[in-house]
Amino acid sequence: MPDPTLDEIVALCKRRGFIFPSSEIYGGVGSTYDYGHYGVLLKNNVKSEWWRSMLQERDDIVALDSAIIQHPRVWEASGHLEGFTDPLIDCRTCKLRFRADQLDEAACGRKPSKHPGETDDCDLTEAREFNLMFETHVGPVADSASVAYLRPETAQGIFINFKNVVQFARKKPPFGIAQIGKSFRNEITTGNFIFRTREFEQMEMEYFVPPDEAEQSHSYWLDERMRWYTELGIRPDHLQLREHGPEELSHYSSATSDIEYLFPMGWSELEGIANRGDFDLTQHAKFSGEKLEYFDQETGEAYVPHVIEPAAGVDRAALAFIVDAYDTEEVEGRKRTVLRMHPRTAPVKVAVLPLVSREGMPERAREIFDAIRGRVAAEYDEGGSIGRRYRRQDEIGTPWGVTVDGQTLEDGTVTLRDRDSLEQERVPATELAEMLSARLEEPWTSPKLAATQAE
Amino acid sequence: MPDPTLDEIVALCKRRGFIFPSSEIYGGVGSTYDYGHYGVLLKNNVKSEWWRSMLQERDDIVALDSAIIQHPRVWEASGHLEGFTDPLIDCRTCKLRFRADQLDEAACGRKPSKHPGETDDCDLTEAREFNLMFETHVGPVADSASVAYLRPETAQGIFINFKNVVQFARKKPPFGIAQIGKSFRNEITTGNFIFRTREFEQMEMEYFVPPDEAEQSHSYWLDERMRWYTELGIRPDHLQLREHGPEELSHYSSATSDIEYLFPMGWSELEGIANRGDFDLTQHAKFSGEKLEYFDQETGEAYVPHVIEPAAGVDRAALAFIVDAYDTEEVEGRKRTVLRMHPRTAPVKVAVLPLVSREGMPERAREIFDAIRGRVAAEYDEGGSIGRRYRRQDEIGTPWGVTVDGQTLEDGTVTLRDRDSLEQERVPATELAEMLSARLEEPWTSPKLAATQAE
Repeated sequence: MPDPTLDEIVALCKRRGFIFPSSEIYGGVGSTYDYGHYGVLLKNNVKSEWWRSMLQERDDIVALDSAIIQHPRVWEASGHLEGFTDPLIDCRTCKLRFRADQLDEAACGRKPSKHPGETDDCDLTEAREFNLMFETHVGPVADSASVAYLRPETAQGIFINFKNVVQFARKKPPFGIAQIGKSFRNEITTGNFIFRTREFEQMEMEYFVPPDEAEQSHSYWLDERMRWYTELGIRPDHLQLREHGPEELSHYSSATSDIEYLFPMGWSELEGIANRGDFDLTQHAKFSGEKLEYFDQETGEAYVPHVIEPAAGVDRAALAFIVDAYDTEEVEGRKRTVLRMHPRTAPVKVAVLPLVSREGMPERAREIFDAIRGRVAAEYDEGGSIGRRYRRQDEIGTPWGVTVDGQTLEDGTVTLRDRDSLEQERVPATELAEMLSARLEEPWTSPKLAATQAE
Repeated sequence: MPDPTLDEIVALCKRRGFIFPSSEIYGGVGSTYDYGHYGVLLKNNVKSEWWRSMLQERDDIVALDSAIIQHPRVWEASGHLEGFTDPLIDCRTCKLRFRADQLDEAACGRKPSKHPGETDDCDLTEAREFNLMFETHVGPVADSASVAYLRPETAQGIFINFKNVVQFARKKPPFGIAQIGKSFRNEITTGNFIFRTREFEQMEMEYFVPPDEAEQSHSYWLDERMRWYTELGIRPDHLQLREHGPEELSHYSSATSDIEYLFPMGWSELEGIANRGDFDLTQHAKFSGEKLEYFDQETGEAYVPHVIEPAAGVDRAALAFIVDAYDTEEVEGRKRTVLRMHPRTAPVKVAVLPLVSREGMPERAREIFDAIRGRVAAEYDEGGSIGRRYRRQDEIGTPWGVTVDGQTLEDGTVTLRDRDSLEQERVPATELAEMLSARLEEPWTSPKLAATQAE
């Protein structure tokens, strides 16, 4: 079973209503996507698992939801206004614009088989810096006084609330502030499906620590975040840590490591975990005139905490969960496509299916469905052959299937089918809700990992 | 107990970390707010209760999450580019800009005690239409070809995906598509805390019905949505339906009723429920050239479904839940402020508190906390006197408090305190998780409603 291609993933996502190209009836907008039903459920699961790991399973992190359009000074202080740029080159002849650092991959407008540097047609300008923040205007007058930006990261909304949180949430370092929300970057080069889009959802947590604990905390969060992905079923051999070299470090960072995932287009960043030092709090203190420090009552000293930042993407995580789960196999002579997802990330946990649409089975199946839907995300489906209904559930990653058949009407038991092993067991319908709720809490290992290890 | 003022609500929200003015260290941005820890938990509860009512408790609605920056043609088709405007008037003397329809409430820049129309200083222009959509540019060139808008409503993202959903989710009318997400309106007149802000979160559902069922469906959704608020504890006497008169109907609507809530500033719109007819699908069909119809296989006829739209605001709902729950009373000679929220919307369900910080009580309390936190949103607090800790929990609306005392160490029972009645019962610690999970599912009536009825 080879790893899936990006085309296979895109096709499944469209076919099963996970993800559609946005504004498709108008010809689409480059690299913009809308999430359909199962895509929303998957993303909601990803986000709630992230909240669970940040809030429910620990005591030292609080939540925040800051505005997308903040005070413009925020982006002066953060360095984004000056430094968050890509170098762009215009061609005076073919009229296209290219990223200077990606000229080799770009194509000339007149001779698309050639790169801008290789062809005489291209008359290139010097590189100019182009800011990646989306600009807009607040209020009725579009002048410099009303200019505002869509945030390019959620992190700054956290830093500017540091003082509020220390004051009102009574937290002392080490503690974290976590946020999920949309960010916007006017990227010139987008692509690889939902991997790089101009509008995307981030899950960022800023962990404030005493300066001498920063290094240790950085390595702790590398482990923690790696564990989050593997516990949710991502195969460890599809994950790697990559430390940024000195030349690729951001202006604010003294050390960054990426958690990379083996996407169909190769190893690519899934999450960046940076040691931001005291850069952000110091900058905002300077630009705002507010003291952004922590006063340690035990030592009687004030200090500026250092910051460790695990910054993940909801869309990238969702893509990784789909890619890692995608599998095909032959069952009784027919090809089966199946998403072998962790039950907790799977959009639907259980499908309730009458074997046939008659003999009272649909009515009984509906009763069973109604009894469990409040406890576990369930779906009822009576249309088409049972085989076809199961293929559909396999493709959206539903871990369990319940079939209501003749025997159900007699003894109240149903068939419980396992998505991965295809094994079936007979269980009393009344025990389903309890049984599946319990299974959702159990540790889970990808059967693809087990298969790889057995090879 | 009089209804709270908006100032009291704002003060509580800041004091307890629900909501802060955004970018406060930079002097703030007009009418922009950041949600702190309890604000995020409350909003997450509001959203998940909305999803529950739309997805989990019914079978005819699917979820969607469409992009904020869509194809600009969407806003031509929807009528927003031409018609989503406010009439503005400039004053050539005092240099201020006013909404023409709100001149009476505005103040002249030179004589703030007077209205622009009343003072000779003001030299007013004719009213000009000003579009409320935020404009930006996608890509490196800021010209007309790259112009794009931040969506002013989530609804259009649903209409442009109608065809995808019919095709891939196999739905037939009546069915709905539901979406939660941010929208942006460049309002000139904002205010009343989080009631009207330029950036806000919507919960919109478009319900597609055969044309002859539209009227009946409209009245069905009025009832349904009213029920959602009252079942989550909003007092019915603080809610009213108000039908739009012909002059205030939007261009797309043949009938709209607002669910209004008695906010501190008076009756104001909480949710609008519109009969949009076939306006949107017809417009998008016309502008895109795609057929946006439903083909009924039983009758062999194609038709354009009509649309009923319950459009709620996450922020407004959150504000209403706080306002409606806010209460003060005197207990043993001291003023107690308490949010009498429905347990399902309350940010924290249970606080676990050692009576004192010694004699093994903190350790035992932590054990109990760790045993239940996976089942119900819980908080552990050992700092300060027990009375002070309870006042804090009362102000964030925590319905249950567990006190671990000397007797706990002997017989394993704890005190379970009810936020509203202040009654205490003695229960085995081992039964807490099960008991509180069950209570979360029970119907609930606001004790403020009961008190009103008894008066």
